[in-house]
Amino acid sequence: MLTDSFLSELQNIPNLDCYRDTETLLHYGHDETEDLSFPPHIVVKPATVEQVSAVLKIANQHQIPVVTIGGRTGLSGGALAVKGGIGLSMERFNQIHEIDLKNLQVTTGTAVVTQTLRDAVAQHGLFYPVDPSSQGSCFIGGNIAENAGGARALKYGVTKDYVLNLQAVLADGTIIETGANTLKNATGYNLTQLLVGSEGTLAVITRATLKLLPFPTQNVLMLVPFRNEAEACEAVSAVFRAGFVPSALEFMERDAIDWALQFVDNLNVVVAPDVNAHLLVELDGNNLDQLLEEAEKLCSVFEAYDIDDILFADSTEQKNQLWKMRRSIAEAVKANSVYKEEDTVVPRYALPELLQGIKRIGAKYGFKSVCYGHAGDGNLHVNIIRGDLSEQQWQEDIPKGITEIFELTVALGGTLSGEHGIGYVQKNYMPIKFPTHHLDLMRGIKNVFDPNGILNPGKIFPDA
Amino acid sequence: MLTDSFLSELQNIPNLDCYRDTETLLHYGHDETEDLSFPPHIVVKPATVEQVSAVLKIANQHQIPVVTIGGRTGLSGGALAVKGGIGLSMERFNQIHEIDLKNLQVTTGTAVVTQTLRDAVAQHGLFYPVDPSSQGSCFIGGNIAENAGGARALKYGVTKDYVLNLQAVLADGTIIETGANTLKNATGYNLTQLLVGSEGTLAVITRATLKLLPFPTQNVLMLVPFRNEAEACEAVSAVFRAGFVPSALEFMERDAIDWALQFVDNLNVVVAPDVNAHLLVELDGNNLDQLLEEAEKLCSVFEAYDIDDILFADSTEQKNQLWKMRRSIAEAVKANSVYKEEDTVVPRYALPELLQGIKRIGAKYGFKSVCYGHAGDGNLHVNIIRGDLSEQQWQEDIPKGITEIFELTVALGGTLSGEHGIGYVQKNYMPIKFPTHHLDLMRGIKNVFDPNGILNPGKIFPDA
Repeated sequence: MLTDSFLSELQNIPNLDCYRDTETLLHYGHDETEDLSFPPHIVVKPATVEQVSAVLKIANQHQIPVVTIGGRTGLSGGALAVKGGIGLSMERFNQIHEIDLKNLQVTTGTAVVTQTLRDAVAQHGLFYPVDPSSQGSCFIGGNIAENAGGARALKYGVTKDYVLNLQAVLADGTIIETGANTLKNATGYNLTQLLVGSEGTLAVITRATLKLLPFPTQNVLMLVPFRNEAEACEAVSAVFRAGFVPSALEFMERDAIDWALQFVDNLNVVVAPDVNAHLLVELDGNNLDQLLEEAEKLCSVFEAYDIDDILFADSTEQKNQLWKMRRSIAEAVKANSVYKEEDTVVPRYALPELLQGIKRIGAKYGFKSVCYGHAGDGNLHVNIIRGDLSEQQWQEDIPKGITEIFELTVALGGTLSGEHGIGYVQKNYMPIKFPTHHLDLMRGIKNVFDPNGILNPGKIFPDA
Repeated sequence: MLTDSFLSELQNIPNLDCYRDTETLLHYGHDETEDLSFPPHIVVKPATVEQVSAVLKIANQHQIPVVTIGGRTGLSGGALAVKGGIGLSMERFNQIHEIDLKNLQVTTGTAVVTQTLRDAVAQHGLFYPVDPSSQGSCFIGGNIAENAGGARALKYGVTKDYVLNLQAVLADGTIIETGANTLKNATGYNLTQLLVGSEGTLAVITRATLKLLPFPTQNVLMLVPFRNEAEACEAVSAVFRAGFVPSALEFMERDAIDWALQFVDNLNVVVAPDVNAHLLVELDGNNLDQLLEEAEKLCSVFEAYDIDDILFADSTEQKNQLWKMRRSIAEAVKANSVYKEEDTVVPRYALPELLQGIKRIGAKYGFKSVCYGHAGDGNLHVNIIRGDLSEQQWQEDIPKGITEIFELTVALGGTLSGEHGIGYVQKNYMPIKFPTHHLDLMRGIKNVFDPNGILNPGKIFPDA
């Protein structure tokens, strides 16, 4: 694929680091999606937008695929070089350029780790609320590419709600600024929002200006154990109907908690034998007395269901423990078995119906699933466990089961992915949500931005 | 333009009301933009999405322009039939389909008046925060088409932040659903956000599902009189730096207030002679004691500047009066003089510099301007007053002045329109913000959605 003329042009880009050794190619050939491995043919690590522009210009002329690589924490295979070509690692765009205290904005390179960004602005009393579970290693650019969500989305929204403006490089090397650093904008088509969630298929995002909020200084965290998992899902909607908007409302099935407790040492959480699900509920604000008053009222909402004693976290350490338990589930499942993860999302009231449907479909196809996720915004992660399923069952029956899960999700007013993106592993399910004319509109947009189809080929769109 | 075969096909659409009388054509040929009049050749009033689809299909085959018409409150001429053709009045899509208390969403026809929608959901304790000044007559569909903002955007965001899903009709008559009724969505390109703010040039929007919030039950409103208008602008940024996020923070120049006071009867507001600008500041929430405490702290932020006595509105009636004063400014200016309104927006800290620059440019070209707007989000409405300028000055010098205002706005990190859209009157200023390759991307998208260019031609894009 990589001709000598292509390589020599690439090597003529001043100060661009290129790697072709097997170890590097393998390293950049996987992310957190199952056990997939798609090494690129070459890895480049530009450090400036001009270098990105030069790489794309050459790749476009030679029609070589370019896959933008971030923190490699993706769960849909979005950053895997499934067609080979260039792995464009953004890791050197790791500078926070400006924390703008006057306008409550931050301008950052897209390879800054999300947690690093959140911590940096917090030091100035500012809040970047988007907190995917992988925040300790994912890049802000990957969050933008996949429109990442996380646990605070029910109150604070998702990545798209914070992106004001992007610097991006088009397939032909043109550098654009998508919008303006303003809270309001009604000036032409919203290319900023079009790039958010476009999974590296429309442009390479090199810099982002994000909206910030004042940091809420207080929070209350409680763990509510339910004997019946469907009731836990029902309670989610009851919380909002009662007028509360928690800053987090997480659902965990019994299995999810057990696996997390086994996986993480020293988690000081005891779960009674008859408990089948938990809600982890956080309220935040600036007035602790008011939060405690609200939390008390919230308890009476939960007490209408069959619950065990509610645990109030009474120290920062205990809060960290509870969040660690929640955030370890994905890794715990991965350590336990081969699995496939789906990222279903529905209007939150439809959660009980979705959960019951998933269990029914599991029974039909003979698979076990572990479900957990951001119930407050209707986003349920479904881990389908391989366990002792045969290769044939895994390859043939499971995709049928997943198809039925997605059909149910769409029938309930939901969609295929809430925050992980479609990437490589979900792309062939896209026709369940979108008719051909809709996919053709998206293909048309893709073609405007990237007529040679070099940017992240083999993603989002179903195989022909 | 309208051939017999076209008219007979149109008249074959069952139950579609068509109008060609001069009175109707003139009525639908203007909005609130200056004194412009561009009557369509025919007005149709579909009542169903199938009728919209049928109209577009025929128009597309015959290549007849279609302009979607809403509440005709636009300020950029977005709904004017500048190329003639069909005026597609959406007024019969005026049903709220469902207020979904379980998921805090509303699904509505796009011809529902914004205030009607806000009142309807408020009766259920729910809040649709977007409140353009024209909310008493503008349609929610027009708000979506222009990405309308309003006074609460600094805390609650703009229209785009509430649109979850749209039903829309493409130029060829295809009916699509753009997204899903979910808070999170990472499933393909975000066509929902692409249609928001696209000013009727990509599709006809027939139904919208909008996110709602619990209604904040309490608020505090205060009017802060400043002796120096630049200091009033500076104070805006100081409020946020001190950790406050008011629900409204409006700026009004002295002239704006004087004109509003003359225009509206019985406004019980007295302004001292040495006051040159006001900030109208609202805090909202659910705990009145806490709001009053915050308001007191906020006063000390303002007291660092040269201000007169702060007025606290002590009754609902007084609050309504202050808001009426603010909302009447546009009409008052219109009643006073021929004018042109620009809708500049910058990062909020740049407001004082923008305001001073506008006055400097006004002095250079000999025009008076009245400035007011949503200072909390950096959105300043600039009314350029014709007064006794000659026709030549008005036609030749003023556009040069506007060009300089926009150049300054862009240089300050801002953009041409915060919430009114580009429409007809701002389109030739687009190259100030966007280089050709950027406009070409937008044109490419337009071409994917509307290859024959029938949807709202002559808008957004600069003349060739």
